[in-house]
Amino acid sequence: MKRTPARPLSRREFEKLFRRLSNWGRWGPDDDRGTLNYVTPECIRNAAGLVRSGRTVSMAVPINKAAGPDNPRPPAHYMVHGYDIHWDLGEPQFCTDYFASEFHGDCHTHMDALCHVGYRGRLYNGKPVSSVTTHGPTLLDITAFAHGIVGRGVLLDLPRLRGVKWLEPGDAVMRRELEAAERAQGVRLGQGDILVFRTGHHRRRLELGPWNPGPDGEGRAGLHATALTLLHERRIAAFFPDGDGETVPSNAEGIPYPIHALQIPAMGMVCADSLQFEELVKVCEEERRWEFMVTAAPLRLPGGTGSLFNPVAIF
Amino acid sequence: MKRTPARPLSRREFEKLFRRLSNWGRWGPDDDRGTLNYVTPECIRNAAGLVRSGRTVSMAVPINKAAGPDNPRPPAHYMVHGYDIHWDLGEPQFCTDYFASEFHGDCHTHMDALCHVGYRGRLYNGKPVSSVTTHGPTLLDITAFAHGIVGRGVLLDLPRLRGVKWLEPGDAVMRRELEAAERAQGVRLGQGDILVFRTGHHRRRLELGPWNPGPDGEGRAGLHATALTLLHERRIAAFFPDGDGETVPSNAEGIPYPIHALQIPAMGMVCADSLQFEELVKVCEEERRWEFMVTAAPLRLPGGTGSLFNPVAIF
Amino acid sequence: MKRTPARPLSRREFEKLFRRLSNWGRWGPDDDRGTLNYVTPECIRNAAGLVRSGRTVSMAVPINKAAGPDNPRPPAHYMVHGYDIHWDLGEPQFCTDYFASEFHGDCHTHMDALCHVGYRGRLYNGKPVSSVTTHGPTLLDITAFAHGIVGRGVLLDLPRLRGVKWLEPGDAVMRRELEAAERAQGVRLGQGDILVFRTGHHRRRLELGPWNPGPDGEGRAGLHATALTLLHERRIAAFFPDGDGETVPSNAEGIPYPIHALQIPAMGMVCADSLQFEELVKVCEEERRWEFMVTAAPLRLPGGTGSLFNPVAIF
Amino acid sequence: MKRTPARPLSRREFEKLFRRLSNWGRWGPDDDRGTLNYVTPECIRNAAGLVRSGRTVSMAVPINKAAGPDNPRPPAHYMVHGYDIHWDLGEPQFCTDYFASEFHGDCHTHMDALCHVGYRGRLYNGKPVSSVTTHGPTLLDITAFAHGIVGRGVLLDLPRLRGVKWLEPGDAVMRRELEAAERAQGVRLGQGDILVFRTGHHRRRLELGPWNPGPDGEGRAGLHATALTLLHERRIAAFFPDGDGETVPSNAEGIPYPIHALQIPAMGMVCADSLQFEELVKVCEEERRWEFMVTAAPLRLPGGTGSLFNPVAIF
Repeated sequence: MKRTPARPLSRREFEKLFRRLSNWGRWGPDDDRGTLNYVTPECIRNAAGLVRSGRTVSMAVPINKAAGPDNPRPPAHYMVHGYDIHWDLGEPQFCTDYFASEFHGDCHTHMDALCHVGYRGRLYNGKPVSSVTTHGPTLLDITAFAHGIVGRGVLLDLPRLRGVKWLEPGDAVMRRELEAAERAQGVRLGQGDILVFRTGHHRRRLELGPWNPGPDGEGRAGLHATALTLLHERRIAAFFPDGDGETVPSNAEGIPYPIHALQIPAMGMVCADSLQFEELVKVCEEERRWEFMVTAAPLRLPGGTGSLFNPVAIF
Repeated sequence: MKRTPARPLSRREFEKLFRRLSNWGRWGPDDDRGTLNYVTPECIRNAAGLVRSGRTVSMAVPINKAAGPDNPRPPAHYMVHGYDIHWDLGEPQFCTDYFASEFHGDCHTHMDALCHVGYRGRLYNGKPVSSVTTHGPTLLDITAFAHGIVGRGVLLDLPRLRGVKWLEPGDAVMRRELEAAERAQGVRLGQGDILVFRTGHHRRRLELGPWNPGPDGEGRAGLHATALTLLHERRIAAFFPDGDGETVPSNAEGIPYPIHALQIPAMGMVCADSLQFEELVKVCEEERRWEFMVTAAPLRLPGGTGSLFNPVAIF
Repeated sequence: MKRTPARPLSRREFEKLFRRLSNWGRWGPDDDRGTLNYVTPECIRNAAGLVRSGRTVSMAVPINKAAGPDNPRPPAHYMVHGYDIHWDLGEPQFCTDYFASEFHGDCHTHMDALCHVGYRGRLYNGKPVSSVTTHGPTLLDITAFAHGIVGRGVLLDLPRLRGVKWLEPGDAVMRRELEAAERAQGVRLGQGDILVFRTGHHRRRLELGPWNPGPDGEGRAGLHATALTLLHERRIAAFFPDGDGETVPSNAEGIPYPIHALQIPAMGMVCADSLQFEELVKVCEEERRWEFMVTAAPLRLPGGTGSLFNPVAIF
Repeated sequence: MKRTPARPLSRREFEKLFRRLSNWGRWGPDDDRGTLNYVTPECIRNAAGLVRSGRTVSMAVPINKAAGPDNPRPPAHYMVHGYDIHWDLGEPQFCTDYFASEFHGDCHTHMDALCHVGYRGRLYNGKPVSSVTTHGPTLLDITAFAHGIVGRGVLLDLPRLRGVKWLEPGDAVMRRELEAAERAQGVRLGQGDILVFRTGHHRRRLELGPWNPGPDGEGRAGLHATALTLLHERRIAAFFPDGDGETVPSNAEGIPYPIHALQIPAMGMVCADSLQFEELVKVCEEERRWEFMVTAAPLRLPGGTGSLFNPVAIF
């Protein structure tokens, strides 16, 4: 397929797209689950029906504790108790640890709460950003997803489609490429599905080492903002990318994170960041299928703006 | 059923039980997955086959950030960015947070890594406790469970069996009571199952407020050590209790945590602590069934001695 | 001396007192050092001139890592490296640790930055509270005191004056009692001095155990708001109390922290909290003097709203 | 002065030097204050006698929160409360923060406890390294210095002596250069003094940006191990360097940190790391003197292996 370079959206086009994709009010004025509402009991039954070989595959990146260009504030992880002395209580002995982290780092697999992103003063469903203070969010926190994200996962493997190891930083995936990937893999996204979107970001990282993917760095591959119309029309429940779904540089003028701005405040979409699919693609190829059950759950953290998590694919 | 008070095990009986329950070498000298090996593809397929109504239920306690008798070192959770000023990048805006915690607190739903408990200098499979230092474990860390715990969950609801709201601190559940609960609920534990073991610990906490359940406190209800023979014979894969499975005071002389000492170093059992089933029991009663699919995954943290997590039941 | 119960200030009296004590503009519109400006070179020379016996005494409470009624979010302190294994580098070996804390806890000796307290939307010198966001303060942070607090310390020992072990929670010290303590101890507060104000809070804690001294707890002894006129007239540079200077319940109607509201936003006073003088009073009694050199410095933390610190008296 | 390249010490010479410099037993078998014992009341009186102009100067580096080659695990510093909403209590309002850090980072001004360094299984005074576990040190922790480090500071400014902006990584300062600096500056180190040792490390960092000064990086300038004989003979109480006193590469064969290994386990010397003297040197030049009063105190942290701190020079 011939790819023409993606033209950036103008601000006016972006605003129009925001309104087109908006789910405000769709599930009531106080809804806090967004596109998770698309997941019907039937979706979950059907997802469970995909379980055949019983293989399970993590889609999380092992947590990276070393500072680097995509990990400027690495987590702290320390032992609390080792086995060097016996506890006063005697046997058995215990070892324990302590862990501290931000959730939204560029190389840590995490979910976003719907409060995580605001646009022009508004969160999803039109709630004001002032509902989130230093004391934390008063609504739309991560506990809205406490009972888990369960459904059919559909992997669209863009490097596979293009016949490359990975998409290069800056590459924007258009709607027609998502559709081409569907055809190539014999799948079709439908209501309540979890779009597992692979650009090869993590593969590139494994082979070339980490880089700064941010606006002040070398960039990353992701979706063109207009491709979100497909996710909207198909009623996708969740978006699980490697990278974070964005192209950097942005493909919308003056909006550095257009995908986040559209997915979260406009669509109320359940979004995750920085997954990895290197183990997953091997299993998909072996099983010759790109659909599977997905189960995932954020930590049940009141006031969380997101959560580290470990989503699992079940075949 | 008449319950006679549980007699504590003598040290000699404990040692004998340790050897009887031991799985050392069963899956090879370097196995690090323990009883997770019991989970066959068929187990996972059958678990998925239980999904009918598509309801999902978290079994995690909302993370408690206030110090209390069962939470002496509460997690730290702070905002990093609020919406109070715009980022230099302009729209959209983001809010983020920071979270720090120990994993093994008495009121935080978490998994134990197999390195978490040693007995007489040995971890599961006979590995030396010296393999865990202040630099962290060199083997048997939580990443052994990175691809998730998936299988059939079977709830044994002891307060339901006894017709009480909760078991009182110190109460020991014997093997015959587990079997009685199976009969009362029409289920039978089998290979690869996840035993969801309810004492009502969390219900008591909700109604009476928190207490110190440790050896220096008011105690807790749990399993009698001899009841583990049932889990062993039935080839249970994982143990998900409210509380932590122990009775306090201990039911083994001179061993303050006999259940941990037997489950983890001897059996290599996948264990979690401090779940809650208050939402779960309602669904079980409504659906009139006490078996369901369970999916759970720890954070993929190299060197972790455990992990906070959010296990989910799917009906 | 007969003490009549302190009458609470009305809101109107409080506002009047706020204006009377205000140092806004005294050292220029952009001053960020407040009453530290009172410390002249001569003050420091004179303070150094008090050094005779060469004894040094810490006025900090040992950092308390156990949760308790006055320590609801205790600091985290963990080993990072022990000596359990050799570093790859061989000899020598190192042990290191990790420490995490809030600064403004009720039982941790700390300084307040001038940004720490706002009143009716204004910080010291009339700066808006909006200058402090989740990104931290943009002015009046703790680095304004980076070059240290050095001067003459004058201990006013109120339990000594009253002939009691400690002042009881709720007790308010009036101006005339401060003056009586001066006379009893043969000292007189003057420009640039550091007022070391002892209520016996820490002594009470050592003898009776910790309690919650906050507005939702059992209270604490401190200054009556009107006593600040003495500190103002004498041009005190800094205020180092055990407790935090406040009485709880408050002695100003509708203002739970009147001392903080007057000292910091109105006066720009260098304030610390939660010191202890149990070692200090012994040395004062032995040396028969209640004046000494004080040296103290906060951590040099850009954006700090305060700092743990360890102030030292030199005799 | 002509400088010949420093020859590395052989292991045998190092061991001999270790024994020569050892203070084990000098102040009794259970002493935990090491060279702080050299500070007599007269030392402190004399130090106070140096206070004339009343200027105070911090010798701490502003705490650096950005990851970099000398800051691989930067501190975490977050707001806890901002002014974005009123506290339930009403006026006044408060802002607070949270801070977490290791103490021994290469760019953070900190003290070392005597337990921080062991050599061949022994700490200062021959105590075993096994006295420090994951539970922390049982002796020789930072609280041994709780009452402060007070005395005469003597700056030896090596770049000034050599007529350069800074010493280059790898440069070793010999004893004769310390003596030459004394002569050039008209000072002489004596008992109980605090040696303020300037290589220009921080100046280089300010001008060229940060680098990795460790054994796996670009190195640093410091003392030749044999120069410690001067510190020993003169009975120096404390050593406050920019950098950390070490040359990297090491000037002792097979010993990557010979200065630490000699100063701390052998000499029991009060050592700090990573100070900066850029403000100090300006004042010294203006006042035409390189001696001044120094006051410093670590946080009073039980079990601390060190402490961030902010040492102050008073002129």
